[in-house]
Amino acid sequence: MSPGARASVDEQAIVEGVIQRVSDYLTDPPRGSDPVISYASPSALAQAFATTVGLALGDRAAVHNEADVLAAVEQVIDYSMQTSHPRFVNQNFAGPDPISVVGDWLGAALNTTGATFEVAPVFTLMESAVLDKLGHLAGYVTSLSGELPPVPPGLFCSGGSMGTLLALQLARHRRQPDVTTKGANGDRLVLFVSESGHYAALKSAALLGIGTDGVVKVKTDHEGAMVPDALDGAIGEALAAGYTPFAVIGTAGTTVTSAFDDLDAIADICESRGLWLHVDGCYGGSAMFSPAHAWRLRGVERSDSCVWNLHKMMGMTQQCTVLLVKNPEQLAACFASRADYLFQTDKLHGEYDSGDRTFQCARRIDVLKLWLTWKVRGDDGFAARIDHAVAMADHTRGRVAASDGAFVPVVSGTFTNVVFAWIPPHLRPLALTPAHDLELPVLDVSVLDADIRAELHGYPPVIKASMQVAGSGMIGFQPVHGLNTFRMICMSPTLQPSDVDALLDTINTAGHDALTAR
Amino acid sequence: MSPGARASVDEQAIVEGVIQRVSDYLTDPPRGSDPVISYASPSALAQAFATTVGLALGDRAAVHNEADVLAAVEQVIDYSMQTSHPRFVNQNFAGPDPISVVGDWLGAALNTTGATFEVAPVFTLMESAVLDKLGHLAGYVTSLSGELPPVPPGLFCSGGSMGTLLALQLARHRRQPDVTTKGANGDRLVLFVSESGHYAALKSAALLGIGTDGVVKVKTDHEGAMVPDALDGAIGEALAAGYTPFAVIGTAGTTVTSAFDDLDAIADICESRGLWLHVDGCYGGSAMFSPAHAWRLRGVERSDSCVWNLHKMMGMTQQCTVLLVKNPEQLAACFASRADYLFQTDKLHGEYDSGDRTFQCARRIDVLKLWLTWKVRGDDGFAARIDHAVAMADHTRGRVAASDGAFVPVVSGTFTNVVFAWIPPHLRPLALTPAHDLELPVLDVSVLDADIRAELHGYPPVIKASMQVAGSGMIGFQPVHGLNTFRMICMSPTLQPSDVDALLDTINTAGHDALTAR
Repeated sequence: MSPGARASVDEQAIVEGVIQRVSDYLTDPPRGSDPVISYASPSALAQAFATTVGLALGDRAAVHNEADVLAAVEQVIDYSMQTSHPRFVNQNFAGPDPISVVGDWLGAALNTTGATFEVAPVFTLMESAVLDKLGHLAGYVTSLSGELPPVPPGLFCSGGSMGTLLALQLARHRRQPDVTTKGANGDRLVLFVSESGHYAALKSAALLGIGTDGVVKVKTDHEGAMVPDALDGAIGEALAAGYTPFAVIGTAGTTVTSAFDDLDAIADICESRGLWLHVDGCYGGSAMFSPAHAWRLRGVERSDSCVWNLHKMMGMTQQCTVLLVKNPEQLAACFASRADYLFQTDKLHGEYDSGDRTFQCARRIDVLKLWLTWKVRGDDGFAARIDHAVAMADHTRGRVAASDGAFVPVVSGTFTNVVFAWIPPHLRPLALTPAHDLELPVLDVSVLDADIRAELHGYPPVIKASMQVAGSGMIGFQPVHGLNTFRMICMSPTLQPSDVDALLDTINTAGHDALTAR
Repeated sequence: MSPGARASVDEQAIVEGVIQRVSDYLTDPPRGSDPVISYASPSALAQAFATTVGLALGDRAAVHNEADVLAAVEQVIDYSMQTSHPRFVNQNFAGPDPISVVGDWLGAALNTTGATFEVAPVFTLMESAVLDKLGHLAGYVTSLSGELPPVPPGLFCSGGSMGTLLALQLARHRRQPDVTTKGANGDRLVLFVSESGHYAALKSAALLGIGTDGVVKVKTDHEGAMVPDALDGAIGEALAAGYTPFAVIGTAGTTVTSAFDDLDAIADICESRGLWLHVDGCYGGSAMFSPAHAWRLRGVERSDSCVWNLHKMMGMTQQCTVLLVKNPEQLAACFASRADYLFQTDKLHGEYDSGDRTFQCARRIDVLKLWLTWKVRGDDGFAARIDHAVAMADHTRGRVAASDGAFVPVVSGTFTNVVFAWIPPHLRPLALTPAHDLELPVLDVSVLDADIRAELHGYPPVIKASMQVAGSGMIGFQPVHGLNTFRMICMSPTLQPSDVDALLDTINTAGHDALTAR
């Protein structure tokens, strides 16, 4: 760019060309038989981009012309994962809401940071409004006055792991108020999370100087929910061994099976033991939007903190994470540094500055897209997104049950994730067993013959890879009860029964191909 | 949204309306006499939005119609800080590059996460390309082969504070490899950073369980650069007192005066003492793009890690941060959790997955906008942005020197930040003293009469607030050597000499008004 000059002709053409292309993409996203991914290996991608601007930046990175740059933009789109495609069921995000996307664009164009009121007056108040409403849903805020509090019940942060990290620091700080100044005092701190909980607990413990040995994994039931009695037992054992329990993480929507811990039962234990209860609602917190599904988080109102990723079920673009806290006053006590070049006490409305109540300084504006989408969808639209997701998962469970043994559930499941195995014809029907109180019988992996287990274990990676290469669908797999199983996350608002049926047919066909190739 | 249906008419109209408005904003941003901010208090903002959709979300958040939503979008733009405006000289970011903005939009529309190759094939390779090139600029990578390494020399993270946090954990991990599993071992760890260094050091120490008492602030010279002898002395004192030094943070571009520590001298000390050298290049790292200014970071190639915010000087939208590391193999050793639902070893090209080499899991795609901008601007365009910034600061320093005592420098400065005081007519001329080897004489605050000092201290908040309310400019102030002084950050590529002159005139006029009102 010629500094200071208005946009040159080429720059203007590139800007307008990208806007046109990305707008077209947004209003007419891939669907149906469009590929979910145009698969290419790293070397194939490098070769493809070599025909336009090249992926690498050489010793002297050149200026590329409009035609080559726009051709490269086309390649970026072509070779990227189409997460808006209904048949992207691979991950705990999918189907960004177009309102969120354009809200994100608006925030990017205004490009400011959320740290201070003076450079983010509108967004600071939006954060107050949204945090107040989310805090109300979680039961932390008893009534919505319509006032926008200078110190809202939580903060926006850069992702779920970050939210859990900050929550655990708050928990440690409540027990050891001088930890932030004097550091760890020699107590052997331990926290508790279920075996199915997110690895953010481990990574946070490592970063906090507690160490991963200070993370006690509590037993889960067959579905992936924490066994409350096992929690109480584990706390007792830790105390007896001379450790200092300080926090419990209850998971609302596990990563693999979307199971919900019994937060009420866990809250009872935390209260009796005097422990901080942090709820990992990164995935399942959004169930609180739906009157039909909010019961899954019963007891969340008794927790001390709750992290919630709106970029997962709610279709906000990456990222949109809130950490809700019951006691907002603690945020400044735990995190403030009082930098005098930024949080001046002698400027206008500094009491609204959010930057000194958290760890991050500059923050992207993540609230605008959420606020804008909420104003367009309303509470009812948000609830509908959740209800549709569970309805699609129920449809998938029905198709699995009616598959004549081609597919078998490995957990029953009642929320969005359907966890199942593909069974080759020569092993059908595999005997299923009832799972607890749930109606859907499941495959009991523990009683499988070793050879059969090894054979079943081998299919998902092969089937997934063949779908990935063909672009016909994108679905995840991972070991559950020791067996590689598919995990279909039914969450995208564009996912329809016909897509589910097509995905299952594709898996079945790819399974037959894998069988033939053995 | 009616789940699963294509966009309703209203939704489509809102999407298209926002795209049109934000595109217009991007291609014709505010400038000249346009307001930098349309100032409104929190209550005034709440009243304004009450005429459209309201800021708050009530007990039952309603669905708003197209007209009201688009009117609210207009209000969002009107009442937000115009960070693209040349007269926004308030902060260490300004003037987003329009190519970066549309690159950001493209990433938002494709909405995926950077954690795994399978869902981010193009972006994973772009990260390799960009990190390799940035690592080359920092001297960590000796030659650019054009290959895209599966394990690049660093990572993208969510901001400068996060980068410093991760760097300090790497430093601690090198000294205590079992800290990630066993936690802090009782050693009283200390790290060193200059008095002018960023507060991320304090916040990171608190979070890491080291405690802010473990942060030793090293004396700086008048300009804000660390005094290397003072560092060596402080390390010796800490050792003598039984502490365990483990890291030094050298600052390349301080927040207030944009001073550069002598990294070569600090590297000598770190080598002789066996300490990790982390460079905080969040602000000034971008000087490495310019052949004329790269010398300011001489010695960076001897450091172990370097954090660099491309969203500051380079005009990337919030955020775009890299943490460069000299030894990339340590990243997995320090941060990996090996979650088997995400980092499967039996999937295609899992060796490229970046997610287990860092703390964060899902990450927004921050590389695309940087890569795209670099392909459009080239190395020369990036250098020009830096050179223009310093040229505008030099112009400002010239105007301050030629102001007949209306403005006086409080530090000399040679980079982008101009730090000065406004002097009322009855106190002109204030005697200045030579600053070290630098040519520009400065105000020696320490010899000021207490009354004069108090009077001068009072002007910046009043002048800034009056400019903010008028929308005529946005400039920061903070205490330097104990005196409130202005900090004009000359960084926006749209900033021209005429803007500088207008800003100084505005300050002078507002100063006279403040004087009259005393």
